[in-house]
Order: sequence, then C-alpha cells, then structure tokens
Amino acid sequence: MSRMAIRYTPEDCARLLEAVRTRQPLIQCLTNAVVTNFTANVLLAVGAAPAMVDIPGEAAEFAPVASGVLVNLGTPAASQRTAMLEAAGAARAAGTPWVLDPVAVGALSVRTAAAQELAGMGPAIIRGNASEILALAGSGAGGRGVDATDSPAAAAGAARQLAGDTGAAVAVSGARDLVFGPGGLRTCLGIDNGDVLLTRVTGGGCALGAVMAAFSAVTSDAVLAAAAATGTYTVAAERAARLASGPGSFAPAFLDELASVTPADIAASLRLAALDPDGLEQAPQPEAAR
Amino acid sequence: MSRMAIRYTPEDCARLLEAVRTRQPLIQCLTNAVVTNFTANVLLAVGAAPAMVDIPGEAAEFAPVASGVLVNLGTPAASQRTAMLEAAGAARAAGTPWVLDPVAVGALSVRTAAAQELAGMGPAIIRGNASEILALAGSGAGGRGVDATDSPAAAAGAARQLAGDTGAAVAVSGARDLVFGPGGLRTCLGIDNGDVLLTRVTGGGCALGAVMAAFSAVTSDAVLAAAAATGTYTVAAERAARLASGPGSFAPAFLDELASVTPADIAASLRLAALDPDGLEQAPQPEAAR
Amino acid sequence: MSRMAIRYTPEDCARLLEAVRTRQPLIQCLTNAVVTNFTANVLLAVGAAPAMVDIPGEAAEFAPVASGVLVNLGTPAASQRTAMLEAAGAARAAGTPWVLDPVAVGALSVRTAAAQELAGMGPAIIRGNASEILALAGSGAGGRGVDATDSPAAAAGAARQLAGDTGAAVAVSGARDLVFGPGGLRTCLGIDNGDVLLTRVTGGGCALGAVMAAFSAVTSDAVLAAAAATGTYTVAAERAARLASGPGSFAPAFLDELASVTPADIAASLRLAALDPDGLEQAPQPEAAR
Repeated sequence: MSRMAIRYTPEDCARLLEAVRTRQPLIQCLTNAVVTNFTANVLLAVGAAPAMVDIPGEAAEFAPVASGVLVNLGTPAASQRTAMLEAAGAARAAGTPWVLDPVAVGALSVRTAAAQELAGMGPAIIRGNASEILALAGSGAGGRGVDATDSPAAAAGAARQLAGDTGAAVAVSGARDLVFGPGGLRTCLGIDNGDVLLTRVTGGGCALGAVMAAFSAVTSDAVLAAAAATGTYTVAAERAARLASGPGSFAPAFLDELASVTPADIAASLRLAALDPDGLEQAPQPEAAR
Repeated sequence: MSRMAIRYTPEDCARLLEAVRTRQPLIQCLTNAVVTNFTANVLLAVGAAPAMVDIPGEAAEFAPVASGVLVNLGTPAASQRTAMLEAAGAARAAGTPWVLDPVAVGALSVRTAAAQELAGMGPAIIRGNASEILALAGSGAGGRGVDATDSPAAAAGAARQLAGDTGAAVAVSGARDLVFGPGGLRTCLGIDNGDVLLTRVTGGGCALGAVMAAFSAVTSDAVLAAAAATGTYTVAAERAARLASGPGSFAPAFLDELASVTPADIAASLRLAALDPDGLEQAPQPEAAR
Repeated sequence: MSRMAIRYTPEDCARLLEAVRTRQPLIQCLTNAVVTNFTANVLLAVGAAPAMVDIPGEAAEFAPVASGVLVNLGTPAASQRTAMLEAAGAARAAGTPWVLDPVAVGALSVRTAAAQELAGMGPAIIRGNASEILALAGSGAGGRGVDATDSPAAAAGAARQLAGDTGAAVAVSGARDLVFGPGGLRTCLGIDNGDVLLTRVTGGGCALGAVMAAFSAVTSDAVLAAAAATGTYTVAAERAARLASGPGSFAPAFLDELASVTPADIAASLRLAALDPDGLEQAPQPEAAR
C-alpha cells in the first residue's frame, strides 16, 4: 500500500498568503538581469521584502540571514554562478529554503552544467516550464530560449523523477500549472488559474520563482508553498487581465492586484485539483478552456 | 548610369509586421543593463520572442539558433564584450542577421574600440543617433552620453560612408528617422512618425534596435527591415502618446499599442518618403512640424 | 558663539528644480542592477539626462564630463567596484559633485569595505536610511537588507558625525526625511512630504540618490541640493499616490508627476522645517501623522 498523499485546499493556500503578509519574509534573489526590477516589485507587492544580494563574498553571508533564496539561471555570468553556489551551499547549511529556476536549460551548456550541480544541493522547490524540467531531468533537449515547446503533462514523468532524485517539490508552469511532491509521495496538484497575458510580460515565470521562495519561508511543506504561490500569482493575474488593455497595462495592474488580493479572494477563486500523476501523460490538457 | 534605388511603400512595411507576428522570430539580445527589461517587453509586444543570452560560452551557441541578434554597447562590461564578439562571429557564420547599436560611441574609449571591431563583422543594420553614426564613421566626437548633439541630416554623409564600408543598412534616429542603403545603392528613406515622449523613456532607441533585429529575421532586405521596424515602432508611439499623461504612463501605453497596432494601421499611418541623399545635408529639417 | 545655520525655504528648493529643468544636467550613474531602468526614467522625468557609464576604463573618462555622479552600492560586482573608485576619484579631481548611497551597508562585508573607502573620497552627499547611516558611521549593525530597522531620529548623532568626518551633507530617508549639514554647521532640515507607496516600489530610495546628484549639479550648496531633491521627489510621490490603485500603478503615475510638477507646486506643497539637531534623538517622530 502506497503512502497517502496529503490533501490540499484553497483555504490552506489562503492561510499561507496571510502568513507571508504577516511575516514579510526577506528573500535573497540571485536572478537574471532582465527581471531583477520586476521580481523585486512582485515580492514587495505580495508582502515580502526583496534583497538582490548576488556577488561572491556576500551571497553566502546573506543566505543564513534571509528567510528564503531564489537562484534563477537566466543570465548566469561567471561571478554570479560563483555566488549561486555560495548561496545554495550556505542556505542548505543554515536551513534556509531555496528555489531553483533552471531558465532555458538544455540547449545552453554553461547554465546546464550549473543547473545540474545546483539541483544536487537541496533546493526546496525546482520551478520551470515543461521543456526546462524535461531537460534538467535528462529527458529533453530544452525549449526555445525561455519558451516551452512541450506541454506540462508531457513533463510529468520527468518531474516525478526529478522530485525523487532531488527531494524537491517540482513545479511545472503552463496553461494548467502542476506541482509534484518529492520523494515517495505521489502528490500531484493542478492549478487552473492565470491568464495568457502573464506570458506576454518578461519575467512572468521568473518572478513566480521568487514568490515561491517567499511562500516556502513560511511553511516547511514545499508542495503547499509552490501551490499557494502559484495560486496567489495566477489569481492576481486573472484579476489584472480584466483591467488591462494589453501587456503594457497588464504589468502595473498585476502588481496592484498582487498587493490587494486577499486570502479570502484566494480561497474563493483558486481552482486547485489533486490529480493522478499516472494519468497525466495520457489525459487531454484543458488548454482549450483557457 | 547609377543603379536605381528600390521603391518601398507603407504596404511593404505592413506586410513585414504581419510576417513578424506570424513567425515570432527568436531574438538574442546582448544589450545594456538599463534596458534589458523594456527591450524584452517590446519584443514580446511586437510579436517576437526575446532571449537575453549574453555570456561567454553561450553567446556563440545561441546565435545560430536565434532568428536575429542585437548587439547594443550601452554598458559593455568585459565579459559581455567577449560574448558580443562570440555572438557576432557565430551569427555571421550561420547567416543570422544581426544589428549593431553603438551607444554613446566616440567619447568613451572602451566601447569605441569594440564598436569599430564589431562594425567589421557583417552587421545587417547599424542603428544609432546622428552623433553616434558620425563618431563610428570617424567624423565626429560623439554625443552627450546617449543624447545626439547633431541632426540626422548632418550625419547623412557619415551614414552613407558607413553603409558603404560595412555593407550594412544604416538607420539614424531623430525627429525624422533616416535609413540609408548599403553598398552602391543610393537608397535613403525618411520616416516622419513618432512622438517626443519616446525620448523621455530610457531605452526608446535601444529597444528599436531589437525590433530591427526581429524584422531583419523575416526579410533579406535590411533597408526594408529597418524602415518597417522604425515605422511600426513610431506609429505605435504616436498612438500611445495620445493616451499618455507623461513619460510614466506612456511606457505601458506604448507596449499596449505595439501589441495591438495592425498591419492595416501601419499602411494607413506610416509617413515614408524616398529622399535624395545628396540633398539632405542642405535641406531644412522638418523638426518644427513635430 | 557657534556659526549660524543658513535658512532654507521651499522657494529656494523650487528655484533649484527650475535650474535642473533649464540646465538638464548629465548624471553618470554607477548603480545597482535592480534599479537602473527606474533610475534612468526618474532622471529623465525630472529633467536631467542619465548616462549609466559604469565600467572600468570608461568610468573615469566620463566623470569629468558629467554634471554629477551617483555611486550606489546595491549590487557591487567586482568590476563595478573598480569603476566606482575610478569615477569617485575622477569626479573629485574634476570638481564634479557626486553622491554616495551605501545600500545595505553593515551586515555585508564587501560593500561595507567599499563604502568606507568611498566615504573618504569627497562625496557631496551621502544618502541612506537610518540603519545604513548608523552602520557607515560605525554605530550600528545595518538594517534588514535594504530596509531600515532604525528611525531617522535615532541616526541623528551618527549622521552628524558622518557629515563632520566626510564633509558631505548627509540625508537620512524615512517618514520624515532629514538632511544634516557638513562640517561645523549645525544645519538640520526635516521634510515631511511623501507617501508610503514610495517604499512599495523597488528603487524608491536609490533613484532619489540620482535626483540628488542632478540637483547637486546646479548648486554648490549640498544641503540645499539634498533638500530640494527630496522635496521635489516626495511632493511628486504625494501627487502620484492620489492617482494610484497600488504600487503597480503608482510607479508610472510617479514618473508622470515628476515630469509635470512645477516649481510653484513645490513652493506651495513642500513642508520644510529647520530642526534642532540636539533635540531629535529625544523628540517623538511624527510618523503617526503620515
């Protein structure tokens, strides 16, 4: 008899947003040059405090002080890669939860090597699109730059393998976002919120990784942290999309909604489903409904 | 008898926008730290896909995969300069069109040396303001930081010489934007759209270079690519300026308009003129009409 | 008998904004990767011209040409630290006023060493939050990342000591912003404008440092420059807050207001007070009124 998966509800996610707002976790970000500003503003909006400490000599000093750490491989210059290894090592040693986002891994050699090393250093959550998760698990060639060329369901097997190998919760973004539990747990959650405008703003996925780090700072359950972060983020995106005239006006509206969305809004609007991980690769994706 | 210049129409430019929207070219950007986010959002809005791959060891790997490449010298740190040479060399070898933007060249020695080396590596388009084009052609001292201190017409001779020397189309931004054909062609196009608010947002010129790379990915005619990119960009700017209360609200409105402007809008609104390049330096500039 | 402090009025600050608009000072920024874009847009909005020249070999070339320089230690990578020393040295030699912003100094060793060296190189203004000023003066452990954990009044003694030691005006940001005069002058100004939304946008403090550099370019009185920059900035923030629905819509509204606020608006709205520096550490702070 296999172990039972834990049940998660929208109310659990709502409570976690409440905890982020109350505790204002300090999130160290080592992220790419394109999205630093948007990421910091997303963290501030959701109620966390950003600190972009990403140079060698300081990255390891800060990780034990931080409440959570994001390591995002979007523009991994040599000195930043050194700082990433410092931060991940210090975070693991101090028990600070950290999130790995292996941006565009697979096709590009420098970041692929870095991502493989970092994946073995105890991240709480690994977050990527389907192509990135397939590539990091060794099952694919990677996507088209930052764009996925595979569906989240197609990455289910790779995500489960990666979760088992690393002990991390694995979050796969897409029209339906998926979160896979680590280790022997057969947890697989689907989140059916969001809006396509989130894919028309650079850093939409990258900043979600930072929000996952913020939520992982207020719970020891990395699956719940990934799901609640995704739920808060995508519910806010839905609300912003109703106010936007395009991708330009969407971005400020999204920050406004991240700041104003309440735990009660999350409990009422989050479409969270427990899924059978074995059935995913066969099942049709509900993308037409988006 | 000299060769006849090709005729270009607003409808040609409109068709090129249609092609960008359909083919969604993947544009590798090696650009300055100030404008990475805005540049990526501009590319997404116009219908292209950005990929900011700018580190040594990856820049050359990606250029053959990319549909177009932008090399912008705004903040040319040492490792990025190495990556720029890698990317330009790999792009030339693979036949990927690439755009050179020699930001603030002339007064600053490091970037001036880099720009001169890069200009000899086969860019499809060189884009700059009048002072930058004069400086790169060896005829001026450069502008005031990123600001031009010369008029586009004053740079006509330098632009034609630079086009002849490098084989690139040369685009000179200003109140009237100019595009000069390479080689023996005596093409000179003027585009009389745009709004002064575009100069009040940082990266207004830099992101146009990225859009030129996107348009050069869908045609082998670099003059048409530069003109159609400029036309799409400046028509969108005009439309956004009508909705804006200042430079802050202009930026999101501009992204919205880049995403929503149609090829038919371009065909209807683009003020494109074939000019006599010999007459430019004598002719009065229509700046008062702006 | 001690020297009398100079009297400053809102009208003095208004005239300085007028001078910035007229003279459009060129401001060289060596600042952190998170806020480069916002900082450049703030400078453009207020009427100055940004130039992000921050690489070794160019930083010293540009500082004598610039009207003012900002050195902000938010993400001090090794090559940027080299460029900062170059720029500060060249600025001092050329008489170009420069502003030091010792972001998150205290807890982080690399930037703390850099800040101490730079503080001895003749900055016109040192700007920080209370925790940063305490740490730079050697009286505190620094804040929580970029967040102050001390009140401006608590830093009054440290600010006066730092002003005396360095010859710089020292600006301490907070609910009530404070500016301390250098040397033997007992000047202490309080500015009671602003809005809490300014703390919900990343770079709110960092971009103010750039604006101080712009104002210091049009007067030799660093106290007046710091006060007028703070006043213009916080009055614009108040006006923007009335139009905003949250931190996302605040940012573009703030840029619009920076561009449209008039010297007459500053003269009418600025709440500027001459304070007794000895009384500050005992006095209750007027934070409840904000």
